[in-house]
Amino acid sequence: MVEEVPEPVPGPGDLLAAVRACGICGSDLHTLTHASAFGALAGAAGSQAVAFDPEADFVMGHEFCVEVLELGPGTDGAGVRPGDLAVSIPVALTGAGVEPIGFSNRYGGGYAERMRLSAPLCLKVPDGLDPRLAALTEPTAVGVHALARAGMRPGEGALVVGCGPIGLAVVVAARAAGIEPIVAADFSPRRRELAARLGAHEVTDPATEPAIEAWRRVGGARPVVVFEAVGVPGVIDRIMRDAPPRTRVVVVGVCMEEDRILPLVGVVKELDLRFAFGYEPHEFAQTLVRIAEGELEVAPMVTGTVGLDGLADAFATLARPDEQVKVLVDPAGPGRLSPLRLG
Amino acid sequence: MVEEVPEPVPGPGDLLAAVRACGICGSDLHTLTHASAFGALAGAAGSQAVAFDPEADFVMGHEFCVEVLELGPGTDGAGVRPGDLAVSIPVALTGAGVEPIGFSNRYGGGYAERMRLSAPLCLKVPDGLDPRLAALTEPTAVGVHALARAGMRPGEGALVVGCGPIGLAVVVAARAAGIEPIVAADFSPRRRELAARLGAHEVTDPATEPAIEAWRRVGGARPVVVFEAVGVPGVIDRIMRDAPPRTRVVVVGVCMEEDRILPLVGVVKELDLRFAFGYEPHEFAQTLVRIAEGELEVAPMVTGTVGLDGLADAFATLARPDEQVKVLVDPAGPGRLSPLRLG
Repeated sequence: MVEEVPEPVPGPGDLLAAVRACGICGSDLHTLTHASAFGALAGAAGSQAVAFDPEADFVMGHEFCVEVLELGPGTDGAGVRPGDLAVSIPVALTGAGVEPIGFSNRYGGGYAERMRLSAPLCLKVPDGLDPRLAALTEPTAVGVHALARAGMRPGEGALVVGCGPIGLAVVVAARAAGIEPIVAADFSPRRRELAARLGAHEVTDPATEPAIEAWRRVGGARPVVVFEAVGVPGVIDRIMRDAPPRTRVVVVGVCMEEDRILPLVGVVKELDLRFAFGYEPHEFAQTLVRIAEGELEVAPMVTGTVGLDGLADAFATLARPDEQVKVLVDPAGPGRLSPLRLG
Repeated sequence: MVEEVPEPVPGPGDLLAAVRACGICGSDLHTLTHASAFGALAGAAGSQAVAFDPEADFVMGHEFCVEVLELGPGTDGAGVRPGDLAVSIPVALTGAGVEPIGFSNRYGGGYAERMRLSAPLCLKVPDGLDPRLAALTEPTAVGVHALARAGMRPGEGALVVGCGPIGLAVVVAARAAGIEPIVAADFSPRRRELAARLGAHEVTDPATEPAIEAWRRVGGARPVVVFEAVGVPGVIDRIMRDAPPRTRVVVVGVCMEEDRILPLVGVVKELDLRFAFGYEPHEFAQTLVRIAEGELEVAPMVTGTVGLDGLADAFATLARPDEQVKVLVDPAGPGRLSPLRLG
């Protein structure tokens, strides 16, 4: 899994950077286990991105914070200089089209010592912000965007089903937006505890109290927006059956398999299923600033760190949800996955 | 199928009426073939209505226009008098709760000579409107509501998949709202012809040109809202795969069976699935007025008429979509299903 690859050389518009921290994302785990499904489904979805072959070599890692080392040719207007900490949406602008960094056979991701990035997309990290928190910009922006997709109205609460990093990011974004109450559900005690620390007013273990019952206990008859942040088959169906009439369901969990629903349930209750994916560039930029200003308090999300040599170990551990939540890869970090608390 | 039942007696708040026309709805056909599924799924959907046992006796028919015969006790404020033509949302207000007329074991539907209706819900048919057109208020309101659920924005066109009565009602509502272009798809030449007469700018046979390709040919790169008006498994999946990114899909077809989707397709394209059901009472009332004023031109939708003795024959014929579209039951009508043209 860890291989020596040539040092990237910045082409026109590129910069060369040293990785300071890179979060491990659930999509990376999905991609390893569902590589062929990923390709087939991305094809079905009609993605406009440059062709990506998950069976060929590529370097993952799309939640990165870097230190700029060297600007390539044609980067005069860049907003960063050597020595700056920077983040970027995980995309490279190339002559052939847009390549998703971390899911590209040409642009390596952040599980590496060095990266090549598109200079115009790089944002300087505000002074004083820990690069490990800056690396959380990407997953936090997913939560910010999911909340925007929900179109929350006054008086509505939030039920967040699944407290992995994306569900937690939804909790953080909802709390910062003043949503109340926020109820979060997860089978893992550790993840429930984090949800509570990050802003959930109530947490529930679906094994003992179904998510919708916890919502009713806390939110009563208030209108609720449900966030599906699990991404395994059956969860959308369960939410559709449980949701009150006229509920909006934001599907932000990424289920890579075929799933089953009962359309009649959606029809009779006039549900909205709003699928959410990623974020807009302006949401990413605002999320960075809001983390730096302390408005989005994401530090408790980080549970561990690991050097490049320990990546395989970290991936294996992340398959057991009660041990770790967000692990940051640090090229200078420990050879084995180690606990890390930032907040 | 045709039975003698006791003459209904109007209780407090009720009126007694003679049925003048009652449309046959696809839901009635569905209910006959999926009676047990209907009960199970309606239970899963958590319907608030009074319990309905589709295995026990009941009289269907919820698209009715009646002539008021007699007002029961406690109907002083009613807006109709004996001799008036009237329509009503197919619901009865009872002490035990709300009962859906046509899917109730206590309130018989419009496939009958006489009906008992809740007087406060009855709307007088505007003078001069043919009761057979007034009977189209109900299915047309479904299309009006589906269009409202779509939240159409300037510049957006409509792709209507399925040209049964509901798909056609969406076409009528979209045309009246000035939506352009409207592209409609159906395998039946007769239904395509009706869609064109009712306002579709282009029609397509999915057997020779997929709906989305017809849309692209006519609508180009315009944003589109897709209306799913078929209601059989697989159609939602097909639409999700074909729809451009960020498309809203209004699911107004009533699929009574389990269905399969690929959530990843919805996620990557950030689709909205908005399930639509029925209409609001004010939409029903406005639809009646708009039909009377000629703004909603629904007459071509009617293709046949039949008396009560020919109902079984009519149901069998409606299973073959190229022969009939909207059949009106007329208690004084012919013993066999006969063609009828109103416009």
